[in-house]
Amino acid sequence: MSGRRAFLRNAAVTTAAAALTRVSPADAAPLAIPESNTVLGAGVNDTPYGSVSTFEHDVVRRTVPFLTAEDKSSVSFTPLQDLDGIITPSGLCFVRDHGGSAMSIDPAKHRLVIHGLVERSLEFTMNDLLRFPTESHVYFMECGANGGMDYKGAQMQGVQFTHGMLHCCEWTGVKLSVLLNEAGVSPQAKWMLAEGADAAAMTRSVPIEKVLDDAMLAWSQNGERLRPENGYPLRLILPGWQANLNVKWLRRLKFGRDPWETREETSKYTESLPNGKARQFDWVMGTKSVITGPCPEKPMAGRGFREVTGLAWSGYGKITRVDVSFDGGVNWKPARLQNPIFTKALTRFRIPWEWNGKQALLQSRAVDDRGHVQPTHAQLLAARGGNAIYNKNSIQTWRVNPNGTVDSVQVG
Amino acid sequence: MSGRRAFLRNAAVTTAAAALTRVSPADAAPLAIPESNTVLGAGVNDTPYGSVSTFEHDVVRRTVPFLTAEDKSSVSFTPLQDLDGIITPSGLCFVRDHGGSAMSIDPAKHRLVIHGLVERSLEFTMNDLLRFPTESHVYFMECGANGGMDYKGAQMQGVQFTHGMLHCCEWTGVKLSVLLNEAGVSPQAKWMLAEGADAAAMTRSVPIEKVLDDAMLAWSQNGERLRPENGYPLRLILPGWQANLNVKWLRRLKFGRDPWETREETSKYTESLPNGKARQFDWVMGTKSVITGPCPEKPMAGRGFREVTGLAWSGYGKITRVDVSFDGGVNWKPARLQNPIFTKALTRFRIPWEWNGKQALLQSRAVDDRGHVQPTHAQLLAARGGNAIYNKNSIQTWRVNPNGTVDSVQVG
Repeated sequence: MSGRRAFLRNAAVTTAAAALTRVSPADAAPLAIPESNTVLGAGVNDTPYGSVSTFEHDVVRRTVPFLTAEDKSSVSFTPLQDLDGIITPSGLCFVRDHGGSAMSIDPAKHRLVIHGLVERSLEFTMNDLLRFPTESHVYFMECGANGGMDYKGAQMQGVQFTHGMLHCCEWTGVKLSVLLNEAGVSPQAKWMLAEGADAAAMTRSVPIEKVLDDAMLAWSQNGERLRPENGYPLRLILPGWQANLNVKWLRRLKFGRDPWETREETSKYTESLPNGKARQFDWVMGTKSVITGPCPEKPMAGRGFREVTGLAWSGYGKITRVDVSFDGGVNWKPARLQNPIFTKALTRFRIPWEWNGKQALLQSRAVDDRGHVQPTHAQLLAARGGNAIYNKNSIQTWRVNPNGTVDSVQVG
Repeated sequence: MSGRRAFLRNAAVTTAAAALTRVSPADAAPLAIPESNTVLGAGVNDTPYGSVSTFEHDVVRRTVPFLTAEDKSSVSFTPLQDLDGIITPSGLCFVRDHGGSAMSIDPAKHRLVIHGLVERSLEFTMNDLLRFPTESHVYFMECGANGGMDYKGAQMQGVQFTHGMLHCCEWTGVKLSVLLNEAGVSPQAKWMLAEGADAAAMTRSVPIEKVLDDAMLAWSQNGERLRPENGYPLRLILPGWQANLNVKWLRRLKFGRDPWETREETSKYTESLPNGKARQFDWVMGTKSVITGPCPEKPMAGRGFREVTGLAWSGYGKITRVDVSFDGGVNWKPARLQNPIFTKALTRFRIPWEWNGKQALLQSRAVDDRGHVQPTHAQLLAARGGNAIYNKNSIQTWRVNPNGTVDSVQVG
């Protein structure tokens, strides 16, 4: 604290403060009275459910038109450049659908079935589930294809598109292991099939170890019920794993001996390696970070002081360290990690920067509590080969140009 | 963990599970295919900013028509009965205005002035503020009048109205002490005046100790910019203190030797004590808790197992313990506190309950890390007298009736 104060006295007073407009001395007249001080505002009956300011209407999920032929099997990206803290507002959480978002599921009619290799097949209404012991956890959710468009070089200009298949919410629901105590899973069951109630009947196989570890069935997201496009009324949560396995609109869990080799784990989310083999069941999202300010959408406001900030996460556990480079990876400085730091959740990092107005190459590199270090792009490509699409967790480089604009470039 | 498993085997299997509909044995046919599995859903371009399911449209802020003559100086209440976890969705955060919500403040035109007993008067644009070192914290916010309608007995039937002038958000902004390093507050300055840009020019005096402790200026709430009715584009945050001091639409901070004795700290938020004196500047919200499920709005679904859940908070620090009674305060059991437990934030508690179908009197009692214990209503009344309106933190009693309905009653 005294260190930061000293920093502020030495740096910010001569930089940030120097950029400020001074008003007249100590007994200064206050500002001219703004119009809002002179007219009655809205009544509380006008806003039973609030929405954002009209001045924030460009803070929205965005899509990439060329990415898919049809927007019912496409993705919208979270505007990471506009967000603070670690919680993603529910209305801005990226959406990836395989048959469109099921927007109209009636929770009174929705059912969850547990069957297959269990002692007792069970059917639950939503009200049944709500009686069980409940937990809340903050977890990130990332699409396996996040960043995939940039595997062959820096093609997407903007953090919303390079990293925006990512969100982080407070989820509330029941641990799956609690329900399975009721059903009695057979010792022979090694896999669980999860199926959604959407048009794609989105279906994935999950190994029993993950099911019994930290899997949960969530009905709430950031305090209120799930948003329709995020799986209302029930979603499987597999913390730290590829988002597509976190099956939305969950209606069925079947237990069996082997994986089901469904469409979404054979034709998708599987990829060819350099040696000709296929990498399948690559579930855990790697240790990763990105600077969200500055970024292409948020250029530099001018020389001098600004705080550089970003997000770090790991599907393996907690973030323990983030280093930032301003010269393309030659020199590194540790960033300050903001509390709270949760396992398998976004962690916010911050680091002060005094910009001299010259070109700079900004990078961030995350480390997690298993010792994983975020790789360079060259390291990742060497492991994955040229056909890679999924699980791109390599270091992102932003080039800050002398005019303050910011570009995505490939370095290292 | 093994304790809970054992509990579940003993209790839930014979209760919650007994209430479930069983489907046919291990190789059961899955459920009938729901319509959502057969029709394409919405495309991602349909939801640039998502909203809640149409089935959740009764989860809204509500008002009490008789409370004020006019809804521009009234309050809307948070639907605590519908919320999970500890984060309140921004659209559901209670609103209390003194001259209506200023809905249209242009952040490009908004200014913050710091003046009075300072070395350098300063004027900041929002973009100036955004360059400073930034922090995020989860804090609750509670109106000083929360529960005030029930001082003379249990009049309000529903947790939304007994306790709903309460929310909890992740706030992001700059510590006020950081800005004051730039301005150089005079050692003679013992008080700060904070003024809003709304029609009420909402104005409160804050002692310098709080200003230099944990006060912050926030521009973000739950990851995105403040909602208009919660103070967009800038709000003073005084963690744990009466919400009205957390001035919305903040435009001016003046430093001086004495409090300003503004309207909102003389005619309001001050009250008569039994001895004829007035209690003024009673800022800190006391140690408090309430059961949010069951409650009048969420009656019992039937006999047998259900989890009882609620919220606890203290303006003094962290919640360390919550006890729950099912017999009106005769016997108490410790509830499970859900992580994370932040200072001056809502803490979620949970406790299992096997309901025998008879009348029960549910209470919760919070303890914080300063040793404060939530008082009974009789204890509070003895201290505050019959004219009390503000800072009601006494124990709430819910009477569960044999038919499962729940009433608010006065016990203890």
